[in-house]
Amino acid sequence: MGRRIAEVSTPARLAGPDEGLGRDELGLAARNHGLPLEALRHDLTPPGLHYVLTHYDIPYVPDETAWRLMVGGRVHRSLSLSPARLRGYPAVTARVTLECAGNGRALLTPRPVSQPWLVEAAGTADWTGVPLRVLLDEAGVRSDAVDVVFTGADHGVERGKEQDYRRSLPLGVATGDDPEVLVAYAMNGMPLPPQHGSPLRLVVPGWYGMAHVKWLREITVADTPFTGFQQSVAYRIRQEPGDEGEPVTRIAPRALMVPPGFPDFMSRTRFVAPGTVTLEGRAWSGRAPVTGVEVSTDDGATWQPAGLEPEHGHRWAWRRWSHTWTAVPGEHVLCARARDAAGNVQPVEQAWNRGGFANNAVQRVPVLCTGSP
Amino acid sequence: MGRRIAEVSTPARLAGPDEGLGRDELGLAARNHGLPLEALRHDLTPPGLHYVLTHYDIPYVPDETAWRLMVGGRVHRSLSLSPARLRGYPAVTARVTLECAGNGRALLTPRPVSQPWLVEAAGTADWTGVPLRVLLDEAGVRSDAVDVVFTGADHGVERGKEQDYRRSLPLGVATGDDPEVLVAYAMNGMPLPPQHGSPLRLVVPGWYGMAHVKWLREITVADTPFTGFQQSVAYRIRQEPGDEGEPVTRIAPRALMVPPGFPDFMSRTRFVAPGTVTLEGRAWSGRAPVTGVEVSTDDGATWQPAGLEPEHGHRWAWRRWSHTWTAVPGEHVLCARARDAAGNVQPVEQAWNRGGFANNAVQRVPVLCTGSP
Repeated sequence: MGRRIAEVSTPARLAGPDEGLGRDELGLAARNHGLPLEALRHDLTPPGLHYVLTHYDIPYVPDETAWRLMVGGRVHRSLSLSPARLRGYPAVTARVTLECAGNGRALLTPRPVSQPWLVEAAGTADWTGVPLRVLLDEAGVRSDAVDVVFTGADHGVERGKEQDYRRSLPLGVATGDDPEVLVAYAMNGMPLPPQHGSPLRLVVPGWYGMAHVKWLREITVADTPFTGFQQSVAYRIRQEPGDEGEPVTRIAPRALMVPPGFPDFMSRTRFVAPGTVTLEGRAWSGRAPVTGVEVSTDDGATWQPAGLEPEHGHRWAWRRWSHTWTAVPGEHVLCARARDAAGNVQPVEQAWNRGGFANNAVQRVPVLCTGSP
Repeated sequence: MGRRIAEVSTPARLAGPDEGLGRDELGLAARNHGLPLEALRHDLTPPGLHYVLTHYDIPYVPDETAWRLMVGGRVHRSLSLSPARLRGYPAVTARVTLECAGNGRALLTPRPVSQPWLVEAAGTADWTGVPLRVLLDEAGVRSDAVDVVFTGADHGVERGKEQDYRRSLPLGVATGDDPEVLVAYAMNGMPLPPQHGSPLRLVVPGWYGMAHVKWLREITVADTPFTGFQQSVAYRIRQEPGDEGEPVTRIAPRALMVPPGFPDFMSRTRFVAPGTVTLEGRAWSGRAPVTGVEVSTDDGATWQPAGLEPEHGHRWAWRRWSHTWTAVPGEHVLCARARDAAGNVQPVEQAWNRGGFANNAVQRVPVLCTGSP
C-alpha cells in the first residue's frame, strides 16, 4: 500500500515543454478560484470574489460552540478559548490585502505543477479578531521560546506526507505590533465563511496567504525552530530540489489592472473603442508602503506615472491607482507596475523558482482597439 | 482590424488527442469556480461556494437605484421597474439547485475547448423575487407572442460576435407556474452578490444555468422565435458543427458524492481508514423528481440503493442521500447515480456532444483504503 501512496502523492515536478495543464491542475483550478479582475473596482472584495486556496478539504463545522483554540507549549498558562470567548476581548479590525504565494505560477516557464494561478489570487477584506500578542501575553511566553506554531483543522497528504496544515511565525513577528497579527473570527463584519477559515483563522498582514492559517485550532509556542512540511519543504524559493532555499514570507509589490473595455469569452482579449479610457487598478506590497505605480501602453517599452490614492489609514490594504489613456486603433499590451518604499519594483521579466512562488512580474493585458468590433 | 478580431475570437474547437488544457481554458477556470465537493454537506450552499460562470465581465453596479428592468415588446403596457419597486410585490422564495450546462465538459474525449468543468458546477440557494408571470400579466402579453427574451447587462464578444448576453424562454415556460420563473433580487436572504446577478436575475427552476439570465435589464415579448447567439449557436446538443442540434433546456439527473476521508493535495485521491464509512451526497434532476440513488463501490460493476431523504417541500432543490460502506484495504472507485420519475438514469458511459453540454455521466471517486497512509 505504501507503494500506491507514493504513486498517488508524488514529488513536486515541472511541466515539460509545451505541456498543457493536466487533470490534477484542473482539479485544483476548478475548486480554488481567483479574483475576477473587474472586481478590483471594489475597495473591499465582495463576498465570494476574494481568492480562495485550500490545500485539503474545507473542514465542516456546522456548530462552532464545541470549537476550542488551544494555546500551549512554552507558556506559563495554557489557554482553551471558544469563539464566543474570543468575541469577548476588545475587537480589532484590520483591512488587509491577501495574496497567494503561488500567484503567477502558471505564467512561469517551465511551469511548476501545482495550483495554476495566473495573476488573480488576491483579495481585500476587513478582518476582525483579537491580536495574537494579547493571547500570548495572557498565556505568558517562556523565555526560551523562539517560534510560534499554528495548526489548522485541515488534514491531508502532500508529497507522500500525511499532515495537518501547520505553519509557524518567529516569536518576534507573532508578538509584534507592526503588523499586528490577528486571530480573526469575522470577515467584512460577518462570521468567517467556511472557505475562509470558519470559525477562526490567523491574519498576518503583509504576508503571503500560507501564513494566515485557517480553521485555527492550536497555537504552540516552541523552543526550537519549526521544521514542518509547509515551512521547510513547501513555500521555499529554490532553483533546485535539493536547495535549502529561502522561506516565502512577505508579499512582493504588485499592481493589477481592471482589464478595460469588454472581453472575448474564450481568449479574454479586451476590446476598447478609440478615445479616452480610464485605466484603473490596485497596488500593494507587504514589504513596505507602495510609493508609486507606473503604466505602460506599449508592452513595457515606456512607462508613465499613474495617479495613486492615499492609504486612507489602511497600511496593509491595496491602494487604488488610475491613469488616462487615449486609445487609438490597433493592438496594444497594457501593463502596470508597483514600487514600494524599500525600493522593490515589479520586474518585467520573471524571476523563476522551482515552487512558482512570489512571481510578481508585471501583468500584461492585450487590448484590441477598434471602432466597431 | 476585422481579421484580428477573427483571430482572437475564434470558432469553437475540440482539443487534440492528449492536448492538455491551454491558457484560454485556464483563464476561465481561474475566474469561474465550482462547488468544492465537501460543501455538498450543506443543504444551502454557503456564500462564495456556489458555482459561478460568467461569459463576459461581472457588471459593476455600485448603486442599484438607477437600475431599471424594462418589460416591453408585444405587450399592452411597457413597464420600467426599479429593484425597490420589485421588492414591493408579494415575495416568493424558492430553493433551487443550479447547474452549469457545461458541467462535465472537461471529462469528455475529445474535450470541447471552453470553460473546463469536471463535475462541480452546481450549487443550491434560496432565491427570492417576483414571479415572472405576475410582471407579464401586468404588462399584458399580446395574443401573437411566442417567446420571451431576456437581456443581461453583461457584454462581450464570442466566436467573433459582439453581444449582450441574451436568452429566451417559450411563452408557456415564461408564464407557467411549474416551475415558477422568478425575477430574483435576493439569494439566501441577502441582496444578490455581484457575481450572481446583482441587482436582478432570472431564476428558472429545473433549467441549466444558461437560462437564469443575470444582471437582468430587459424582458422583451416577441412574436417570432428568438434566434440569438446563445440560443441558436451556443447551448445546442450537436455532433457536427453544421447540425441544427437540440436546445439545452432542463437539467439531466445527477448525483454527486462528498469525497470521503481526506485528500492528497495534488491528485485529490482520497484516503480512508478500514471500517465503516458513511458515503453521502446530493441528487437532483430538472426533468422529474429524483426517485432513487444507487451507489457503487467497485467502479460501476455492481450497485446498491442509497437512502434518500424526502424533498422537504423543495421540488427544485437537491436531496441528500447516504449509504454505509465498509471499507477494506485496497484501491476502490466509488460512484453514485441518480434516476428520476421520468425514467432518466445517469449513464456510466458518456454521451459525447460537440459543445460539451449536459454530460451527466456518473462521478468516479478514487479512494485508497489503508491503515496508515
